[in-house]
Amino acid sequence: MGMYMTQALHRQLQRDPAGTAAVDAHERLDWAGLADRVARIAGGLRELGLQPGDRVAMLSRNSVDFFAWIFGTWWAGGVINPVNLRWTAAEMAYSLEDCQSRILIVEQAFAEMIPDITARAPGIAHVFVIGEAVDAARDWRAFVAGSAPVEDALRSGDELAAILYTGGTTGRPKGVMLSHGNLAGSMFGALAGPTGRAHDRYLHTAPLFHIGALSGLFIALYSESANYFLPAFDPLAVLETIGREGISELFLVPTMLRMVVDHPRFPEFDTGSVKRIRYGASPMDSGLMDRAMAALPGVRFSQAYGMTELSPIATHLGEEDHSPEARTNGRIRSAGKATASSQVRIVDSQDREVPRGTAGEIVVRGPGMMLGYWNMPEATAEALRGGWMHTGDVGVMDEAGYVTVVDRLKDMIITGGENVYSSEVEDALSTHPDVVQAAVIAMPDEKWGERVHAVIVARSGATPSTDALMAHCRQTLAGFKVPRSFEFVEALPLSGAGKVLKHELRARSLQGAGA
Amino acid sequence: MGMYMTQALHRQLQRDPAGTAAVDAHERLDWAGLADRVARIAGGLRELGLQPGDRVAMLSRNSVDFFAWIFGTWWAGGVINPVNLRWTAAEMAYSLEDCQSRILIVEQAFAEMIPDITARAPGIAHVFVIGEAVDAARDWRAFVAGSAPVEDALRSGDELAAILYTGGTTGRPKGVMLSHGNLAGSMFGALAGPTGRAHDRYLHTAPLFHIGALSGLFIALYSESANYFLPAFDPLAVLETIGREGISELFLVPTMLRMVVDHPRFPEFDTGSVKRIRYGASPMDSGLMDRAMAALPGVRFSQAYGMTELSPIATHLGEEDHSPEARTNGRIRSAGKATASSQVRIVDSQDREVPRGTAGEIVVRGPGMMLGYWNMPEATAEALRGGWMHTGDVGVMDEAGYVTVVDRLKDMIITGGENVYSSEVEDALSTHPDVVQAAVIAMPDEKWGERVHAVIVARSGATPSTDALMAHCRQTLAGFKVPRSFEFVEALPLSGAGKVLKHELRARSLQGAGA
Repeated sequence: MGMYMTQALHRQLQRDPAGTAAVDAHERLDWAGLADRVARIAGGLRELGLQPGDRVAMLSRNSVDFFAWIFGTWWAGGVINPVNLRWTAAEMAYSLEDCQSRILIVEQAFAEMIPDITARAPGIAHVFVIGEAVDAARDWRAFVAGSAPVEDALRSGDELAAILYTGGTTGRPKGVMLSHGNLAGSMFGALAGPTGRAHDRYLHTAPLFHIGALSGLFIALYSESANYFLPAFDPLAVLETIGREGISELFLVPTMLRMVVDHPRFPEFDTGSVKRIRYGASPMDSGLMDRAMAALPGVRFSQAYGMTELSPIATHLGEEDHSPEARTNGRIRSAGKATASSQVRIVDSQDREVPRGTAGEIVVRGPGMMLGYWNMPEATAEALRGGWMHTGDVGVMDEAGYVTVVDRLKDMIITGGENVYSSEVEDALSTHPDVVQAAVIAMPDEKWGERVHAVIVARSGATPSTDALMAHCRQTLAGFKVPRSFEFVEALPLSGAGKVLKHELRARSLQGAGA
Repeated sequence: MGMYMTQALHRQLQRDPAGTAAVDAHERLDWAGLADRVARIAGGLRELGLQPGDRVAMLSRNSVDFFAWIFGTWWAGGVINPVNLRWTAAEMAYSLEDCQSRILIVEQAFAEMIPDITARAPGIAHVFVIGEAVDAARDWRAFVAGSAPVEDALRSGDELAAILYTGGTTGRPKGVMLSHGNLAGSMFGALAGPTGRAHDRYLHTAPLFHIGALSGLFIALYSESANYFLPAFDPLAVLETIGREGISELFLVPTMLRMVVDHPRFPEFDTGSVKRIRYGASPMDSGLMDRAMAALPGVRFSQAYGMTELSPIATHLGEEDHSPEARTNGRIRSAGKATASSQVRIVDSQDREVPRGTAGEIVVRGPGMMLGYWNMPEATAEALRGGWMHTGDVGVMDEAGYVTVVDRLKDMIITGGENVYSSEVEDALSTHPDVVQAAVIAMPDEKWGERVHAVIVARSGATPSTDALMAHCRQTLAGFKVPRSFEFVEALPLSGAGKVLKHELRARSLQGAGA
């Protein structure tokens, strides 16, 4: 048999039935309680006629119910299909119909979207609401409580475990098919290494419909950690939960970490229980790293880099890579090295490996590599050509295998024939004392083809001059990399995963420039 | 794609080409040198006509050549079939013919067996010798050096990686089929956990034809460790190598550890570089644990329990389980808890799970579970019935999931209707100051059906009385468990894996008793 994602739940039930498993504002379950819930969810789903491999959709913020639904679906033999909360009803319905989810569970807060979704997704046969029943939607918790527990269906290996939709802002969203072996393969690669881990109190605050947060949940489960859920990221709630529950580990994207560390009430809270912060989804700029390390002096940081199609982790910048030495030699700005279950290469447009130090597309292979895109054989073949997942990210690998992500392929700026990678310019800008955050994009330019354009979020009350910012950049950047135009905004547009939406920024900036 | 065992070699080549990879008395290779060797072995094997899934056999003690052969065979797309060095030529030939190995590589020290083996195994088409060519056997090293390197065949997941023969002392030896996913699944489960690891200097001294030593090699490779090989276990050579190479980690079975710790020249050597000792294959008795901890005060111990059919690790008694507290509560005598990729249960003869604290057969499932026995569908179905590997070991699980192995099912003693597990009696005997080692077996008894019989290796020069030994046992054991007859021997018969051969002991004792 292959790897199976329900294994850790069996294990926790065996060794620590009365230990804390899952906590949110609504309830607190031990492992025995969680396993019972999971087995009842599975029983209920099977009563509804669920067959092995059938999809079950969840539209909810983070909660114990969300956690139990993941494992209950697997226990029943089904496939999880978490819905992106930021989407419109039309987009949600598209994804539900695309992968033929017949069962949809909706958190009360989204209940008013149900008629619109079901009208557009006629394949939905059963709708439940977490909370009070509304219209055609039945009460999920009552349904689960009334269902008889069943045995684990024990799906494993190459069998489908999840369909996660990605993209959608440009073109049709793609359903990434991940197997039990994919999810386990990525996770075990991340768990191997110099840093052992066990028995943490892990706070899950990034949205669980994203693979980054899901991955953190699986790592926590396999590390025998207790799991705490906040419905959504809120810096004050994070600080309060840390203090109240003695949280020892969190996964945060840099945008979230910035909001926590820069929160005006930060000093009021005891964050001494925090031992580890994992970050990902985007590199952390030097300015933020300085502030985070100063604000949380006892905390060990690590970074994971990857994407949904890699289940998701490809590289890891370990705790040992956040040493003062690593900060000096620049490796701290990298995404680290291939994990114990990944192979990473940098290739040119003909898929030939490039010399170390040369920028090219990051490609990855290993057991975490997706089965493919649901019903998209051509897109799958293109993404996985040659047996490697093509990430669409531009990266550089150094002699010791550290990969620095310098840009998205499509966000790279070509000015006067020179490639400029936005992350390098953003990092230079971030160290200016008046800059909170910077995003660098290409703007059309008659003379240079494209020019480097910076969009700046300035420190509250500060108004840095463009001359000062350009002079600051010139200290570390070659002339052609220095932004030639600037724009100041209150905030940057962010994706659900906390990534800056550069296509949106480009559209806005073009509009603002009257282009 | 699934897990693939060549992945770590790609990874080490990428990040540390000039780092120490493999060292023995003959040579010292860095990762670039090892990867080149591996790619040439693969090229040579393919020139010989090796097809994906074909078996390649190695008859050799531990060496860099052995290590390179494993990965070269995989790189070529082949399946490793290491030969048990303790077998007769007839037994070796049986296993080679059984799994149709067409290529055999033999260390010079065993070259004189070649005619006998090939006469009995006519399927062998190519024979090589490591060292000077003899008769029909070609020079392996020259063959490899003259072969052109090829690309990794990249076999993975459920594809066959190894056939390892087990048993044979009673009945026909069975070829255990292990896939890449099996070996990786066991290994990653062992690497996850509270103890991180990386960059050790790992001494491989247990024979690599056994899964225990192989498993240590894979764990070392995936932990980015340098690998040191001794051709065979020798306590003095172990001590010398530790001192000379600064060895930081070893895998030893208790019998080996005893010989190292009790060696008269032990105090002459600097063992300060040793950080970790993993032990397995049998539990460590309390007397030995005391001496080992006293002799190696800075060393952290951990134990793995499993079997070939589980690739091999099922449970793990971690470094944190060797604390003074664990010694007091008795958990140090257990084999630990299920690893992060295993599920373990104790069942009765009808495969029903028994209550905690009750003895029963240990059954295990997970990604490490073998594909099956080569060409033995009935034995496979019997061993894997219900989807669990039946270990044939008797164990007891406590409330926290710790499993104590109390006996082999077939070694259990039934005396006057009571079950006596030999390990408990052996452990009691081991703490007597005049006892070096004890083995407890059943002897036929007219009154009790079976009686508890102890075979003792006494401390040099000591002659403990049976009365004294019985009195010592009565301090901790119920009356029916106390041995009723004793026998004193110079040494116990051991298997290649260092386990006491109880069937042999029983045969000898029966003979001695005139039964």
